[in-house]
Amino acid sequence: MGEKRAEIRRAPIVGRYTQDELALASRNSGMPLEALRYDLTPAGLHYLLIHFDIPATDAATWQLRIEGLVSKPKAYSLADLRRMPASTVRVTMECAGNGRGQTSPRYPSMPWLEEGVSTAEWTGVPLSILLEEIKVKESAQEIVFHGADRGLDRGIEHTFSRSLIPSEAMRDGVLVAYAMNGEPLPPQHGAPLRLVVPDWYGMASVKWLERIEAIDHAFDGVQQMGSYHFRSVPGEKGVPCTRMRVNSLMAPPGIPDYYGRRRNVDAGRAEILGRAWSGNAPIRRVEFAADGAWQDAVLDVAAGAHAWRRWTVRWNAVRGAHELRCRATDETGAVQPLDPPWDVTGFGNNAAQRVEVSVR
Amino acid sequence: MGEKRAEIRRAPIVGRYTQDELALASRNSGMPLEALRYDLTPAGLHYLLIHFDIPATDAATWQLRIEGLVSKPKAYSLADLRRMPASTVRVTMECAGNGRGQTSPRYPSMPWLEEGVSTAEWTGVPLSILLEEIKVKESAQEIVFHGADRGLDRGIEHTFSRSLIPSEAMRDGVLVAYAMNGEPLPPQHGAPLRLVVPDWYGMASVKWLERIEAIDHAFDGVQQMGSYHFRSVPGEKGVPCTRMRVNSLMAPPGIPDYYGRRRNVDAGRAEILGRAWSGNAPIRRVEFAADGAWQDAVLDVAAGAHAWRRWTVRWNAVRGAHELRCRATDETGAVQPLDPPWDVTGFGNNAAQRVEVSVR
Repeated sequence: MGEKRAEIRRAPIVGRYTQDELALASRNSGMPLEALRYDLTPAGLHYLLIHFDIPATDAATWQLRIEGLVSKPKAYSLADLRRMPASTVRVTMECAGNGRGQTSPRYPSMPWLEEGVSTAEWTGVPLSILLEEIKVKESAQEIVFHGADRGLDRGIEHTFSRSLIPSEAMRDGVLVAYAMNGEPLPPQHGAPLRLVVPDWYGMASVKWLERIEAIDHAFDGVQQMGSYHFRSVPGEKGVPCTRMRVNSLMAPPGIPDYYGRRRNVDAGRAEILGRAWSGNAPIRRVEFAADGAWQDAVLDVAAGAHAWRRWTVRWNAVRGAHELRCRATDETGAVQPLDPPWDVTGFGNNAAQRVEVSVR
Repeated sequence: MGEKRAEIRRAPIVGRYTQDELALASRNSGMPLEALRYDLTPAGLHYLLIHFDIPATDAATWQLRIEGLVSKPKAYSLADLRRMPASTVRVTMECAGNGRGQTSPRYPSMPWLEEGVSTAEWTGVPLSILLEEIKVKESAQEIVFHGADRGLDRGIEHTFSRSLIPSEAMRDGVLVAYAMNGEPLPPQHGAPLRLVVPDWYGMASVKWLERIEAIDHAFDGVQQMGSYHFRSVPGEKGVPCTRMRVNSLMAPPGIPDYYGRRRNVDAGRAEILGRAWSGNAPIRRVEFAADGAWQDAVLDVAAGAHAWRRWTVRWNAVRGAHELRCRATDETGAVQPLDPPWDVTGFGNNAAQRVEVSVR
């Protein structure tokens, strides 16, 4: 599985979107923001980022091999895994590139505007149970997760593979999942098996998982070292994308224009509903602003350690054009910035959402 | 439910895509073309075009009213409908705007490249049974179907509503559906009830169906008379979009580049797989070409009167860059054109697909 090294850099884009960006947006799906109303995103509305093609897989013959620096390498069938202790975890997952499409200049990749986030309940075997069973050796520095999806990125052919250090891999809530919202995984979410890493951006949750490998060095795959790093200038080593930055969204109120999606709201008291999340700590506060006048939103009780938190706010809508925004703060004190943080590749854009409305 | 008349025309676009187009592509979903491998598109991969927002609906209290020029107006609950005779129909559905994003100049709307088509099995009550039960009067000229989704298009506020003439509405296979692929409709596909009109472009299959109305004139709603017409110049009356034009797609062979989606194929014999469909007649022939050398594909047996037909072809892939195309012919003799047919609003683009591949 050696990866050919011949990195091709893509030139940044300014202004309107290319057909290559559109082709990615057409096959990958965002969560329509009105679906913020659901605690659990209905399966067909969960955001999708599929780097290559959805592989043709067969649950009946699928095997998950665990090998490398382990004392008891083993291949697990789906039936084997279903007989093991199961856990169900509610997880808010966000693409590390969410918001990239609003940055300028922007990196040529999936041009998410803001809809690359969703919440699901995943059921499977805690990864810690599997790693204890096959006995990872002391010499293992990283655990690598290999998907069955294969293609080229930056001129390098590879399967989608990512690694975790053992302490992250053993963390509570990390699953080898075979079900989503109580149903077998659908093809596009990794059928029959995927990794789920709560609190981290979605790239860590490797789909179509067929091989787990313990290695004695830092994994240097394209999706680990080439991509998914915060970089202020091209080519620098950068800082890996790991846990989700604090973020929030509101369901845009009123009714939309078909083209442009501008919102039309009736004058009077409106209830605004949204969600807030952070991979680093619980949400402490959500603020809402109409035309720059910030006020505190009301937080619902938390719905699990790894899931977004619902919030609401009353807004007295008066006739005219308005800009609505929201921003969250987590228990580390991190707060969403008002403008996109700079990143060469457009990762981690957690700038406070803007919603333009016309009140009539 | 009067619709305000103040039509706003949108200026055509040339070249790269606007953020308004991207916003539509981000919330609506195309079917990734590798999903052409499935006879039945898995639910979360079925294409979606949602004009406004997905409405918040409640199956327990939902009522479908049938009224207007009928002898026995009635409101049906979901339980009422589930007690009536049910039918299941396999339907290939395509957006009338599929392929719009490849036309130039193009109309500002959902910029589908080619992925706005899918196949599902819908279960529900044949519409003919309902219309017989409530006794549509002789004076009825059209049957109007009103969805619960509301918004503005071209400056006019309206619910998504469409009509059929009685003979089309009574046609075999037209359903008031409450299930998709054996499961209750998901929110994004019209939960709890939708119309399904086989053979027609998708706009006829009104989602979130809450009212059926028999009227004595031609329905002039925005989605009936303003949109969904073939027009060669702006403002002309045009010809309504009805049945799907003959069309076909192949699953692009090999493995993709992440950005650009160009295909990389190993030299040697490759099997190409695709689907062909037409709303007007059965598929008679599918042809495949590498670099302009057309050959006949092999058709599988038809999978129902309203569903796409699978085809395959062997291709001897030799090193270098190639352009693959496919085109279908139906029993009326209609054949896909090689270049997009001109239409002001970008409807009905059934030009033969192009797939660029690098054979290595």
